[in-house]
Amino acid sequence: MRDSDARRAFLRSCRTVSGVLPDMDTVLAWFAAKDRRDRFEVRRVPFAALDQWDFLPDPLRLGHVSGKFFTIEGIRVETDFGPVPSWDQPIINQPEVGILGLLAREIGGTLHFLMQAKMEPGNVNILQLSPTVQATRSNYSRVHGGRAPRYLEYFTEPGRATILLDQLQPEQGARFLRKRNRNMVVVVDHDVPGHEDFRWMTLGQIKALLGRDDIVNMDARTVVSLIPLADPDEPPDEGLLDGLPEFCRAVFRSYCRSDRERHTMDAIMAWLTGGKARYGMDVTPLPLDRLRGWQVTDEAIGHESGLYFSVIGVAVEARTREATRWSQPLLHHQGQGLVGFLCQRQDGVLHFLARGSLEPGNRDGMEIGPTIACSEVAARAGRSCAPLFLERFLDPGEGTVRYDAVQSEEGGRFHHFRNRYMIVELPEGQDLDIPDHCLWLTLGQLWRMARHGHVNIEARNLLACLGAPEAGS
Amino acid sequence: MRDSDARRAFLRSCRTVSGVLPDMDTVLAWFAAKDRRDRFEVRRVPFAALDQWDFLPDPLRLGHVSGKFFTIEGIRVETDFGPVPSWDQPIINQPEVGILGLLAREIGGTLHFLMQAKMEPGNVNILQLSPTVQATRSNYSRVHGGRAPRYLEYFTEPGRATILLDQLQPEQGARFLRKRNRNMVVVVDHDVPGHEDFRWMTLGQIKALLGRDDIVNMDARTVVSLIPLADPDEPPDEGLLDGLPEFCRAVFRSYCRSDRERHTMDAIMAWLTGGKARYGMDVTPLPLDRLRGWQVTDEAIGHESGLYFSVIGVAVEARTREATRWSQPLLHHQGQGLVGFLCQRQDGVLHFLARGSLEPGNRDGMEIGPTIACSEVAARAGRSCAPLFLERFLDPGEGTVRYDAVQSEEGGRFHHFRNRYMIVELPEGQDLDIPDHCLWLTLGQLWRMARHGHVNIEARNLLACLGAPEAGS
Repeated sequence: MRDSDARRAFLRSCRTVSGVLPDMDTVLAWFAAKDRRDRFEVRRVPFAALDQWDFLPDPLRLGHVSGKFFTIEGIRVETDFGPVPSWDQPIINQPEVGILGLLAREIGGTLHFLMQAKMEPGNVNILQLSPTVQATRSNYSRVHGGRAPRYLEYFTEPGRATILLDQLQPEQGARFLRKRNRNMVVVVDHDVPGHEDFRWMTLGQIKALLGRDDIVNMDARTVVSLIPLADPDEPPDEGLLDGLPEFCRAVFRSYCRSDRERHTMDAIMAWLTGGKARYGMDVTPLPLDRLRGWQVTDEAIGHESGLYFSVIGVAVEARTREATRWSQPLLHHQGQGLVGFLCQRQDGVLHFLARGSLEPGNRDGMEIGPTIACSEVAARAGRSCAPLFLERFLDPGEGTVRYDAVQSEEGGRFHHFRNRYMIVELPEGQDLDIPDHCLWLTLGQLWRMARHGHVNIEARNLLACLGAPEAGS
Repeated sequence: MRDSDARRAFLRSCRTVSGVLPDMDTVLAWFAAKDRRDRFEVRRVPFAALDQWDFLPDPLRLGHVSGKFFTIEGIRVETDFGPVPSWDQPIINQPEVGILGLLAREIGGTLHFLMQAKMEPGNVNILQLSPTVQATRSNYSRVHGGRAPRYLEYFTEPGRATILLDQLQPEQGARFLRKRNRNMVVVVDHDVPGHEDFRWMTLGQIKALLGRDDIVNMDARTVVSLIPLADPDEPPDEGLLDGLPEFCRAVFRSYCRSDRERHTMDAIMAWLTGGKARYGMDVTPLPLDRLRGWQVTDEAIGHESGLYFSVIGVAVEARTREATRWSQPLLHHQGQGLVGFLCQRQDGVLHFLARGSLEPGNRDGMEIGPTIACSEVAARAGRSCAPLFLERFLDPGEGTVRYDAVQSEEGGRFHHFRNRYMIVELPEGQDLDIPDHCLWLTLGQLWRMARHGHVNIEARNLLACLGAPEAGS
């Protein structure tokens, strides 16, 4: 498949909500059956009860005795970006690159994607939909001692499938130190062995599920966000757009190049480079017991204020995972953050307001983030110190809410870490004062920047939610 | 200027060899006059005679007492890429991001660039042509105690000029630890104060100078390499190509998108991501006096074999630089390396053979390099262990040599570090066996990958040399 064929196939799949599974009820029934059949037991345990996890010295950190998986380390952050010049925090260090892979196949003329019903201990509802493969290197080198992940060979063995997309993408820079995963979409032209935990779905079905809370997991969202909904070089076939809601048509069209884009790609690169060069962030390793404002107890590493997040231990018992019983640390989050994009029709083309984002785990300085990304703490702050544009989401006024759902972050590392994701469209022509570190981009421009790893995961999460054929967005 | 206007202006400037300076004789005469008038005195001195530079402890390294500029540190490298699994070496650590900036202005309807005749202590011929501004952060924060670099304000003060290009670009990963500079081209629409060390030149004049040995310095070459010679989205005006040599026309056309490109951009990203994920390189800091195979004496840090490079000290006396007298370490290189691209018409479109390059200083794993980049040592190795494709450059046979000149690497850090740069075109239809870590790209594709910092400096150096209107290339 050439790029242009693949992109036409993506658009067709996106507008299709009836596939191998004929309707959303069938999708949800399969999901619910799996949920009834298999269950993780997740219990909070003190650190001392974690099997093979321990506090390691020099500097003091929490890690697996094998040296594999990940460690939780302390850092001090110093920066000239944003309102807080310095803070300490724990952070996850997981240097290895994992694979988040989506297997695709044309069935009945429509591209389908093989989704997995997968349990993760940190999800509020345990079971969510993941991509076909979600494998850390420890996973597939089998440190767990379990089976190799199903379907992994289509992503690792040359010739087993055609690669449509293979990109290194950053994860949460506020929680992970320089972490990246390979995001892959590969296509086969033949049947593959089935399994009860996996189902073929159209892109439209996945988008429809993204309209609900806590079903499509973060790993699936980041891969889906990289799938372009139209060919940037070719306006979408108007026949395919027929009957779609007007905002949805604007979304598809915003993927296409146009001379009505507010900024050129060179200007966007210059804006990002300027931000990278202007703002610095120094990150120094510190022992976990020497972080200012943080306390290490037998049960948790938490902030004195009770805010932000804490490191806890959990013990897991499972029937269907690669290993049946294990324990591990997780980053527990209380409350819901808010992640949102403002968008607006400008000269007829839908633009999204991006904001430069600099976080301690970023591998290469500033990344492109959504208009707003803040914790519940910040969202509840008084009007005087509220994050910029917060009001536009909490009280949209003349704006139109195009997307509003709660999604979970990676349940293999985070415990009950959920954000409210919103997209709000401003009325055309309404003027907005924006600071230097914000910029309007089309979806095609965001997609082109994302292809090179410049767009952060919060922004990608929102991009994934766009284009649902039966919703406002 | 919009992207497309700028790109048409670049192409016109590239084809023009008569500008403010009417011909190449005038350019060379100005350069020679400056060379006669001003001179650096450069003397080798022992490390103990370096003013304000010293060996600093924990780990032992060579640095400036202010903590500014750069340090020379030791590293151990371990990798699964290439034939040598592990080695030790000194490397330059210069974490700050400098500016390499070219000021442009339309004069008589043609875009001109303000080039500087600049002395650097490490150049074999001391004087070379640099971009308008070549400033480290130490430079412009004036650690030298000297003047701020001339014309710097056009690159740092918003509103003084229009930014055409502003990108972070990596430098030699074999010699610099994660070093990057901002490469900028900005344009003004009015006169700026002149200075005897600066002259306005067309892109065609710069390209013509690149056909000669050791005139256009590395910093100028990397900025010039990022200037697209045609608009990727619009075939070049055939009138502008009239009268150009046939290879030159193929060069301009190779910047334009086409459905005859051998690989799609998604496939190119997938290839690079695959390389980044597959090959690792661990870099561990080591004290300079504990590097296997290296000896530290009063005069130099050198390899026991006498090969590779050595760290030396020089004392410099100057009349026209920011500071009039200083001393510093440089990396001395003996012999000339070879850097080359193979290219070939495929389906009528000129493609270049890129090779994945993994070096210890790379910030993000594999980068896109030229077909060959090797030291004189490697180039002289016996046939059995010669670098891949070496023979195609040393004995082109049916191939056509399109470019062949010796260029100097950064004279502010390197002493007599020169490479022979070559571009050889293979006959159309001639089959070449290429390994997995090589890939054919058009110039437009290389340019688009370079925009995001994926193309290494050796490859960019060669791209800069393409498009000279009066030469074979």
